[in-house]
Amino acid sequence: MRFTSEQRLDDGVLEREFTLGEIPGILWTPEAASASSPVPLILLGHPPLGLHKMYPRLVARARHCAAEGFATATIELPGSGDRPSWPALDQARADLRRAMQAGEPVGDGIVEALVLPLVDKAVPEWQAALDAFLSLPEIGGPVGYSGGVISIGIRLAVVEPRIEAAGLFAGSLVPRVMFEEARQVTIPLHVLLQWDDEGNDRQASLDLFDAFGSKEKTLHANMGGHTGVPQFAGDDAARFFTRHLR
Amino acid sequence: MRFTSEQRLDDGVLEREFTLGEIPGILWTPEAASASSPVPLILLGHPPLGLHKMYPRLVARARHCAAEGFATATIELPGSGDRPSWPALDQARADLRRAMQAGEPVGDGIVEALVLPLVDKAVPEWQAALDAFLSLPEIGGPVGYSGGVISIGIRLAVVEPRIEAAGLFAGSLVPRVMFEEARQVTIPLHVLLQWDDEGNDRQASLDLFDAFGSKEKTLHANMGGHTGVPQFAGDDAARFFTRHLR
Repeated sequence: MRFTSEQRLDDGVLEREFTLGEIPGILWTPEAASASSPVPLILLGHPPLGLHKMYPRLVARARHCAAEGFATATIELPGSGDRPSWPALDQARADLRRAMQAGEPVGDGIVEALVLPLVDKAVPEWQAALDAFLSLPEIGGPVGYSGGVISIGIRLAVVEPRIEAAGLFAGSLVPRVMFEEARQVTIPLHVLLQWDDEGNDRQASLDLFDAFGSKEKTLHANMGGHTGVPQFAGDDAARFFTRHLR
Repeated sequence: MRFTSEQRLDDGVLEREFTLGEIPGILWTPEAASASSPVPLILLGHPPLGLHKMYPRLVARARHCAAEGFATATIELPGSGDRPSWPALDQARADLRRAMQAGEPVGDGIVEALVLPLVDKAVPEWQAALDAFLSLPEIGGPVGYSGGVISIGIRLAVVEPRIEAAGLFAGSLVPRVMFEEARQVTIPLHVLLQWDDEGNDRQASLDLFDAFGSKEKTLHANMGGHTGVPQFAGDDAARFFTRHLR
């Protein structure tokens, strides 16, 4: 991991951009984090729209988490932002967009073609990034995962034992095969659902919540569309991580 | 309203038993409540099992609310506890129990026979009690309603304008006719659902949540059976009231 820029935000949070091989990313640490008092880490997931585009929402989440004593970090997803384009992913995105614009039901084939390759490629990258983050003296554990493409969160929760709690956003399409993986998840989960999310099948989200194998899992459903998550719902999610990671 | 006993609990909460006509009830006020600094009020609903039986859970909720600066109050439901027995209610209860023990689907007729008369009789009593509570100098407003028979909460939210927010427990049977009333509810709602509640139809609860007319409504679903509401879910509900009533 090579840091490429560094700035101190007005609330004392240290923001560092880095590259990990070819993958760009951002790490935020609270002012008080140090080798003698390392802080827990939350991995910030995001949709495959590019880190630049997602930056305002990411930095807001990072500041919020820092205020609770957490470091946060994120990496660019394959085929997004400044990373090399990935024609198969672009094709799958275009197929999805076409189906949605035509008002057609989005078949599981389209969802699988979009999500599964992304999960297969992104998850090992997040794991490698986690190795790098945890090698920093100011980052301790435990580790949580929050938001983004829910299928990436599911796979990470199953394969990455260092992740001890996950906050997932039931706002993206989930291929049915991921439901089997969801049954294998056992860590505490906090699942956010926007009840009237225009791009999301509510019943599928409820089925997915039901499928998770975790003994402690909580669903918070709120009104409003995809990006209308109320402030208090963010606060609830922060408390979930505080309960499990501190 | 005539106070019949008074004791100071170890956390400073003043617990007063009273009768309102023939109806017994309990009022809890935080130590700091006074005529010069009146406190908001939360009405504590409960199932029709009698106040004596429900006392341990009620006093725990009352102490929790008092710590957040709320007075709380409850009254005995018609046909329960020390109030005169109500043969029609007993009959409806027996019919319900028989159907559930036989593993039969509980028909809407049975639910209506149990719930609707209870709602019709209890709601005006809660309103009269509210008049009495608000006449006390140490009780100000605003007023919330929390828990208990959800159909009573729905009706109160519709007919009682002094109630400004409600926390409802999706844990009791709701006649389909109440769904029409649910559509008329507009106050902020915090709805708790135990995902594996043995006595509750999960889909009906989700349908009911969907039916509520409120612009701000939140569903918190947690694992565990009817009485297994986790501590943190209680904390979330308390924060909902703090957000709306303070």
